[in-house]
Amino acid sequence: MSDAAAHPALDAPALFLPRGFRAAALAAGIKPSGKTDLSCVVSDTDCAWAFAGTRSTTAAASVTRNRELYASGAAVRAIVVNAGVANAATGRRGERDNADLAGALGSVLNVPDDAVLTASTGIIGHLLPMDRVLSGVEHLPDGLQTQLLPFATAIMTTDTRPKTAQATLSTGARIVGTAKGSGMIHPDMATMFAFAFSDARVDQAALRAAFPGIVARTFNAVTVDGDTSTSDLTAVLAGGQAGEVDLGEFLQVLESVMRDLARQIAADGEGATKLLTVRVSGAATEAEALSAARTCCVSPLLKSAVHGADPNWGRVIMAVGRSGARVDVEKLRVAVQGTPVFGGQPLEYDAGAVSESMKAGEVIFDVDLGVGDARGEAWGCDLSAEYVSINADYTT
Amino acid sequence: MSDAAAHPALDAPALFLPRGFRAAALAAGIKPSGKTDLSCVVSDTDCAWAFAGTRSTTAAASVTRNRELYASGAAVRAIVVNAGVANAATGRRGERDNADLAGALGSVLNVPDDAVLTASTGIIGHLLPMDRVLSGVEHLPDGLQTQLLPFATAIMTTDTRPKTAQATLSTGARIVGTAKGSGMIHPDMATMFAFAFSDARVDQAALRAAFPGIVARTFNAVTVDGDTSTSDLTAVLAGGQAGEVDLGEFLQVLESVMRDLARQIAADGEGATKLLTVRVSGAATEAEALSAARTCCVSPLLKSAVHGADPNWGRVIMAVGRSGARVDVEKLRVAVQGTPVFGGQPLEYDAGAVSESMKAGEVIFDVDLGVGDARGEAWGCDLSAEYVSINADYTT
Repeated sequence: MSDAAAHPALDAPALFLPRGFRAAALAAGIKPSGKTDLSCVVSDTDCAWAFAGTRSTTAAASVTRNRELYASGAAVRAIVVNAGVANAATGRRGERDNADLAGALGSVLNVPDDAVLTASTGIIGHLLPMDRVLSGVEHLPDGLQTQLLPFATAIMTTDTRPKTAQATLSTGARIVGTAKGSGMIHPDMATMFAFAFSDARVDQAALRAAFPGIVARTFNAVTVDGDTSTSDLTAVLAGGQAGEVDLGEFLQVLESVMRDLARQIAADGEGATKLLTVRVSGAATEAEALSAARTCCVSPLLKSAVHGADPNWGRVIMAVGRSGARVDVEKLRVAVQGTPVFGGQPLEYDAGAVSESMKAGEVIFDVDLGVGDARGEAWGCDLSAEYVSINADYTT
Repeated sequence: MSDAAAHPALDAPALFLPRGFRAAALAAGIKPSGKTDLSCVVSDTDCAWAFAGTRSTTAAASVTRNRELYASGAAVRAIVVNAGVANAATGRRGERDNADLAGALGSVLNVPDDAVLTASTGIIGHLLPMDRVLSGVEHLPDGLQTQLLPFATAIMTTDTRPKTAQATLSTGARIVGTAKGSGMIHPDMATMFAFAFSDARVDQAALRAAFPGIVARTFNAVTVDGDTSTSDLTAVLAGGQAGEVDLGEFLQVLESVMRDLARQIAADGEGATKLLTVRVSGAATEAEALSAARTCCVSPLLKSAVHGADPNWGRVIMAVGRSGARVDVEKLRVAVQGTPVFGGQPLEYDAGAVSESMKAGEVIFDVDLGVGDARGEAWGCDLSAEYVSINADYTT
């Protein structure tokens, strides 16, 4: 079972960026609230980097441009992020604005435009207020420093708290991550970012080869109305100032950091009162295990049952079945908070005691599909009446 | 736009089966409530038939057996349905029980076992109480008569009302349909059935060739947490006593009947207060149009917005984007209750007036993807706080 114990331990809290990185954040006037909404992370050196973006067919301009840079082989020196406006569904004008945003930071940092990644989050279909954005970018270099939290806070939209994680490798090199996104709640607030920064020196090709798998097991294992918003993106930048590290160790620690951020995103859904974890084993393939776990976590029925502390394992079987994962029903096993409830047939269990155990802050379902050795884990949150009231009148 | 006007008119109400069909229903003691729970429809003659079942990998025994009969070329004379226990996730014992159910009805009707289709709906993972079921089947023939409603009522689980539809062809032949399923609400109550019976004589091969498309545009365009429960099935039986009909007319009328039943299912979600209709045009293919429409109807965010009468078109763009349908954002158009709100860019509109118009019993989004000529329509319901309270404690 891919439980927490199998993952490297994280350091807490995560306050400072790794060597060679600095960040800045300010209020550029994009968010009506006046909160910080424009930020960047800058590396002193060219970074080895990897990237993954949404598969949405209405992807934001930033996702499209980052993907092009990824394919082009450009070296990366900075990421600039704005919150408040997603610059998605904004057509060619949006593409130009996004390129101008990158170009403006490149200009003030004196690095090539193509060394600057972009990320925009906020309302879909609205143009960036470019006068304010460009004015803000002019002032970003003034505030560059080594703290993580100003950046982690400025990238938030409806998040209730900043999300950070960090770990130290055996050589002393560090991986520091931050993410934004409030679970199932506001994918139209476009949506989830996860960034990781490291002072380790790693081979870019090897990093890129491993990254899709890590993203599949972490960031993409958080269910957000089906996995793809217009702006979802994740990137890792390794600057190298802490020298060479063992690649296997680096990837394992990176996955731990990303996994922790993914769980924080799931737990921070507005209206959510619990983290929902579904661990699938016995699958034919990892992809099927992840699909089964994700389908459970996205099910409104299972999420409602978790909210009500109802050990309704029939909903697990339903969700697993519709995920398309191969199942041997005679060998199918389901446990709720460690208590077996189905084992090829309904099992006798103390429903009151299991329901009581589901009142914890995290509810874990273990599901063995009975057909193979592959495993996968996904995270979501419960569905509460508050979710509905929050989302029933958002724009008006 | 595939609006209602393009579909043949239906007759109302639907009270009697077509010529050559009779039905019976009784309380066999499967439902704890004592309501009718065992029923059948019997044809005097061999029927041309078509069938579609869930793609779930934990499909119920009935779905698996019907699929085998479909492939075998067996002629069909009857359908037997039980409600209360789905006989899904019950392994080989469940398969035997299901075959025994069919065999028992075949025996009392004096038709081959293979001429009897089965359908079971209710709780997943529990075995059928075969003593009661077999005792009930013995008594079914006593009650055979031409009324539809006893059958339409006996197949219900959490439905709040029976669902029927009928239409008359130009020759006087009829198509009579009934369905069960309470929308998004209880797919683990496994789940949706739709049956259509006709006294028309139709070519079985032609009917089977057209049926998947009709199912895709009707039954599968109702979003039920992702389209596939363990027991979903739909079947059409044509007995032929009213003689030859024009195949094109028959298929068009059949689709109208199935479409009406699909909309009734969507509207009858517990906790639902409104029917949600999403009509997509300008798609590259019908499959992409249907996918985009379905993804909108399943989105908890859009469903919440519909509940709150909030014209939040950003959620439509998000859902369309994640559906995978190809979109030209510069040509993308979205209208809410007939009012254009997005046309390549956000449009000015009277948000108060549109919100007011969304307080109707049906909320319609029109979406043009701007890339082709294909169309598709899907139906769902709003997401209410009552949904959560209903589903938070179902089994316990």
